[in-house]
Amino acid sequence: MIPIISIVGRSGSGKTTLMEQVIRHLTDRGYRVGTIKHDAHDFEIDYEGKDSWRHKKAGAKTVVLASSKKVAVVKEVETEWSPESLAFTFASDHDIVITEGYKQSTFPKIEVFRRTHTAEPVCLEDPNLIALATDIEAEGQEMGQEKAKGNLPRLDINNSEGVADFIEERFLTPIPEKGVLLAVDGKVVTLKPFIELLVKESVRGIIKSLKGCSNPGEIEIKIRK
Amino acid sequence: MIPIISIVGRSGSGKTTLMEQVIRHLTDRGYRVGTIKHDAHDFEIDYEGKDSWRHKKAGAKTVVLASSKKVAVVKEVETEWSPESLAFTFASDHDIVITEGYKQSTFPKIEVFRRTHTAEPVCLEDPNLIALATDIEAEGQEMGQEKAKGNLPRLDINNSEGVADFIEERFLTPIPEKGVLLAVDGKVVTLKPFIELLVKESVRGIIKSLKGCSNPGEIEIKIRK
Repeated sequence: MIPIISIVGRSGSGKTTLMEQVIRHLTDRGYRVGTIKHDAHDFEIDYEGKDSWRHKKAGAKTVVLASSKKVAVVKEVETEWSPESLAFTFASDHDIVITEGYKQSTFPKIEVFRRTHTAEPVCLEDPNLIALATDIEAEGQEMGQEKAKGNLPRLDINNSEGVADFIEERFLTPIPEKGVLLAVDGKVVTLKPFIELLVKESVRGIIKSLKGCSNPGEIEIKIRK
Repeated sequence: MIPIISIVGRSGSGKTTLMEQVIRHLTDRGYRVGTIKHDAHDFEIDYEGKDSWRHKKAGAKTVVLASSKKVAVVKEVETEWSPESLAFTFASDHDIVITEGYKQSTFPKIEVFRRTHTAEPVCLEDPNLIALATDIEAEGQEMGQEKAKGNLPRLDINNSEGVADFIEERFLTPIPEKGVLLAVDGKVVTLKPFIELLVKESVRGIIKSLKGCSNPGEIEIKIRK
């Protein structure tokens, strides 16, 4: 399963800004990042007058606009979809999905917490809170009950690269420069050089025989039971 | 598999208008309709400044915006997705998907053709063309090579209800008022009253035992091999 983590925090704490920076670092490192933003209100995303807007207006439950570079979808749902369903349906080919919001979910959470903004982290009691991204530097400083949870890592909110390092280390499978990366049930399997060559050449052999794949650069295969 | 049909025709022939009307009729009759619009150019669909736009701009390959009523997705793709993949991924819970464009595809096609607009239908040689939606009334009137294909149904472009009837008859499984509809591999299986009751009560029994489903109104189950 694709790892999903949540960036949480009070409104105005700087979640989107941190997410932007983290997305940029992880993307620069070669990972494919998806995001899910929870919107408590109903939103409008399609431009009035466009054909797909006209389809939607006429009653279509799902409208898709597709080009060779992009796919855009607006879909009505009967009940709210979970982030797991959203990630599985829309971003299963990604390395990680980061959600903004979804405070009630059970994903690993990083809370953005600024001392000047609120007195105490909102998810402090949540067992899924794995770190604070905060402007509180020294261990000695007060932070309400947070002191009780001595082991909770504090990441410097002004060092987004450090936050990206933390996420990469905990949730991401290293991207191979070349050669073969094999992961089974999320765990990387180390391959001896001969086995690596065997896997590489036999898989490439199969793929090359497929129409339009005569010279594959990067091959990715995911097989689920 | 969900049926996919294409509305084709030259630019300006009135494809979107016909689609709007057909979508409205089919939706009014209780069908869930999805649409796919092909865009040869790159498009912008997300509003500048919105959080999900910021995620996208920062490098996220897929951004999802989700509320309890709607899901919006913008996804980068490496190569163009086929309408089958789009329908399967985004609209598998629908009764029909209608595409606009995709002239080269092998789906059943209805071509919008106005005599005043072009001399001859563009898909006349296409074996997947199943009907013309046209303003040419009488059989006797000239229409280029079309006369050779004597059996091609002509639907009145000004009677969108008739076009919807044609689509419903050919591609849609009737919606049961109440009771049970069972379709296996796309074919409706007729059930004797006792069997219908048995299926209904046993399935309802299973579903009712699930959390949050104590009083199910409509149950839909799709099982794929």
